[in-house]
Amino acid sequence: MKTISGGVTAARGFKAAGITCGIKKNQLPDLALIYSEVAADAAGIFTTNQVQAAPVILSKEFLKKGKAQAIIANSGNANACVGAVGMEAARRMATAVGTALNIPMDSVLVASTGVIGVALPVEKIETVLAAKSVMLTENGSPAAAKAIMTTDTFPKEVAVEIELGGATVRIGGIAKGSGMIHPDMATMLGFITTDAKIEQSLLQKAIALAGECSFNRITVDGDTSTNDTLFVLANGLAENPPITTANNDYLTFVQALTQVCLELAKMMARDGEGATKLVEINITGAKTEAEAVKVGKSVATSNLVKTALFGEDANWGRILAAVGYSGVEIDPEQILIYLGDLLVYQKGIGLVFNEAKAKGILSQKEILIKIDLGDGTESASVWTCDLSYDYVKINGSYRT
Amino acid sequence: MKTISGGVTAARGFKAAGITCGIKKNQLPDLALIYSEVAADAAGIFTTNQVQAAPVILSKEFLKKGKAQAIIANSGNANACVGAVGMEAARRMATAVGTALNIPMDSVLVASTGVIGVALPVEKIETVLAAKSVMLTENGSPAAAKAIMTTDTFPKEVAVEIELGGATVRIGGIAKGSGMIHPDMATMLGFITTDAKIEQSLLQKAIALAGECSFNRITVDGDTSTNDTLFVLANGLAENPPITTANNDYLTFVQALTQVCLELAKMMARDGEGATKLVEINITGAKTEAEAVKVGKSVATSNLVKTALFGEDANWGRILAAVGYSGVEIDPEQILIYLGDLLVYQKGIGLVFNEAKAKGILSQKEILIKIDLGDGTESASVWTCDLSYDYVKINGSYRT
Repeated sequence: MKTISGGVTAARGFKAAGITCGIKKNQLPDLALIYSEVAADAAGIFTTNQVQAAPVILSKEFLKKGKAQAIIANSGNANACVGAVGMEAARRMATAVGTALNIPMDSVLVASTGVIGVALPVEKIETVLAAKSVMLTENGSPAAAKAIMTTDTFPKEVAVEIELGGATVRIGGIAKGSGMIHPDMATMLGFITTDAKIEQSLLQKAIALAGECSFNRITVDGDTSTNDTLFVLANGLAENPPITTANNDYLTFVQALTQVCLELAKMMARDGEGATKLVEINITGAKTEAEAVKVGKSVATSNLVKTALFGEDANWGRILAAVGYSGVEIDPEQILIYLGDLLVYQKGIGLVFNEAKAKGILSQKEILIKIDLGDGTESASVWTCDLSYDYVKINGSYRT
Repeated sequence: MKTISGGVTAARGFKAAGITCGIKKNQLPDLALIYSEVAADAAGIFTTNQVQAAPVILSKEFLKKGKAQAIIANSGNANACVGAVGMEAARRMATAVGTALNIPMDSVLVASTGVIGVALPVEKIETVLAAKSVMLTENGSPAAAKAIMTTDTFPKEVAVEIELGGATVRIGGIAKGSGMIHPDMATMLGFITTDAKIEQSLLQKAIALAGECSFNRITVDGDTSTNDTLFVLANGLAENPPITTANNDYLTFVQALTQVCLELAKMMARDGEGATKLVEINITGAKTEAEAVKVGKSVATSNLVKTALFGEDANWGRILAAVGYSGVEIDPEQILIYLGDLLVYQKGIGLVFNEAKAKGILSQKEILIKIDLGDGTESASVWTCDLSYDYVKINGSYRT
């Protein structure tokens, strides 16, 4: 697997654009368009929140046929909780793209992110698309990545290249965070494209697996949003031997897809609202991977752990407490806790450790917390960020 | 039921003291002692965290016989996660009190709160108790309430008086918060005394019920601590007809005990770390009370809701999102959301409301958020506070 440039347009036959249509007040780009030259197999996963935004409901409906050729996504407005006008606005977004690109409206997947409960000014999207001024290009990934940002501080793109049956296959994507980020999806949008040739049912399985091991293992604030969406389009232009069973090519593909999703997910955690650090919680010695993930999420979600990390305070007691209330059966007498490679708690007892060394570890931009449960052989990592003044500042006045 | 003064010494035969023994660095009181002139029936509930502090383990053991005559509690050190020396320190605390008061050491309940993982300097407690300089008085409640404070900004006391079978019965207590506060107990200590005569098994049931409807319905930060403890001592000096069955007197007692616990719990939420507001989340129209509580806790725990409240931002979308991911089956089309008495969301649609009025409601020190699920007749309230810069400040450097 090789990391390449190009993001969501790295794969053959994909173009993208990022446009300013005026939904955001600050004249920043707020509309992203992704297009495949040919109809692609499509799959997706969505928020588990029972309150679902109109574009989520519409895209789920469109995805039932397993094909799509474009993705339209706006930032600045979530198009959620506005009643019937929300569904109408989502449909009008798809229709406007369909008309502009001369493709069926139900081959256009729709996503939105931004404030909840305010009617989407869909006419602004229609106007800009009708003007034919949208330049879809093979270099459009950075512009599209910027156009889906809300409180993100940097655009998120990644792409990789693999060999499948002698053919070079590319997988790339863009994503946005960065609040309401929590396992089981959060206000995150992720759009992945690939030129792999793969059966749609396997593509759906692959994106579910990849999402589970990436986006569903990061948390910023424990809030699960109404709009979370992860799409993957596979247009087959790589001309690899079609993947029709869960063979070795499929496994290679899933691995690469997971890598793309994980890189994007880690960018989200690093760019969590107000975040100053990317934190990996690595759980080993668990009875099952699911239990490792559960313990990791408990630690990653703890406000007390996250504020201590912001303060660069080696308060391992809070880490242990979060392990203790995770819901997974644990034995404090078997647990080891490391900050980086510094052992701070061992089997029931806090150790006397070098505070300067601990401070040095915690002052890094990337922090690894290792927790060995001493109860098995399974492991998993979960990623999060610290909780800072700026998180409060950003979220204390989001609407205004 | 009448509110009276006197806190944890309001009931007949109880004395208390608050002492400075030098565990806290800042010379503030850090040791509370509560004493009953006669041996009392005793009951308690404890943290559900699997990592449990030594005093929790010891007090559980002592409580098995259902009798106690004193409570000793220190602040400044949690006596948790320090290995065998922790159990030894807890036992030495009980022994020191037993010796000073000439009562069996296993009639002394023990509690600690403060930093985790640092050995408790128990010799300081022994020294101050051996010096016989501890003045237990019938007016000692405020001093005891102060001595158990950690990051609390005000001491928490309450007492009530009821009639049971012609006798005047008093119930009073003290408590401390104010971080790691979460349903199912959190770093909270609560000590309740009463002169009611009530069978121990009923006393245990009563405190479990009262705790469930009070301390277990507040949340500050979603973290459950290793030290949470709620004790109740009933010394029978009111000479009411003994409560030996779940009769009307029992119900009256439970109601009053719940009121005492609830008042203390609300003080904790109001005094949550960095809190500027007390927020009640009132859920109506639920299928069951348990579901109402679950939805309420989901909203009360949302960082996004809590930061919006700090910012006095009427961001009802975050409230609705937290309802949607609570795990309780809901229908967004049936839900009503009120900020105070201002309806802001009705059955699928955010309403156009008077922003100035909303701001006026949210600028109060006490805020009521009402959520009608439109799906039943059950209801419940949960209390929380807002999430402020100061929460981050306090918790970014707690150990140092």
